[in-house]
Amino acid sequence: MADKDHPELKLRLTLRGGEWLGPGKADLLEGIAETGSISAAGKRMKMSYKRAWGLVEVLNGMFRAPLVASSRGGAGHGGAELTEAGRDVLQLYRQMQSNAASATEVEIAELTRLADIPERK
Amino acid sequence: MADKDHPELKLRLTLRGGEWLGPGKADLLEGIAETGSISAAGKRMKMSYKRAWGLVEVLNGMFRAPLVASSRGGAGHGGAELTEAGRDVLQLYRQMQSNAASATEVEIAELTRLADIPERK
Repeated sequence: MADKDHPELKLRLTLRGGEWLGPGKADLLEGIAETGSISAAGKRMKMSYKRAWGLVEVLNGMFRAPLVASSRGGAGHGGAELTEAGRDVLQLYRQMQSNAASATEVEIAELTRLADIPERK
Repeated sequence: MADKDHPELKLRLTLRGGEWLGPGKADLLEGIAETGSISAAGKRMKMSYKRAWGLVEVLNGMFRAPLVASSRGGAGHGGAELTEAGRDVLQLYRQMQSNAASATEVEIAELTRLADIPERK
């Protein structure tokens, strides 16, 4: 999540076909893993159930295997969990974030140094 | 630029104060360096002069020193060039991209493998 006191690096990976995986979809997957519910995961991100469900449908269509398995849909807002593919994709994205952050530390520090500091205005 | 046949990694760095540097602003800086004109750089990106100029104003306000120096504004659409700070910021962003791409090769290959391949549908 964004912190005004620290620089934040966000990654978006566009895959074949033009679909992408970025911080929003990754956070939604993580929320589903943690809450066991698409609705609750969306709510944590201030997202409607409809929008969260739409993103899950996109995610399930982007990969060879679905990433999220839900026991019931619709009004019941039934339970949901990550599949093995879902856990793999989330873990790979988090690893990408971590590797990219480490590999760009020098440049981020230098860009931060070159950036205006509001307190000094 | 996006290529449907290859995965593409995009980076957005959010700095203190909430402003960010991403692929669009970096491409605009590069276009200004290459064309010597905010208008021409924007046009290459299918951007109006107004929008390109607005982004330049944001970029110039994000860092301690302006990134773009323009010899005339307004209807004349005069020449523009990157300042030393502008060249530094662009170079640092490109280095970030390159380092991040190298550091995430394994994960990108694995995510690409897990991704649906439209030709097989």
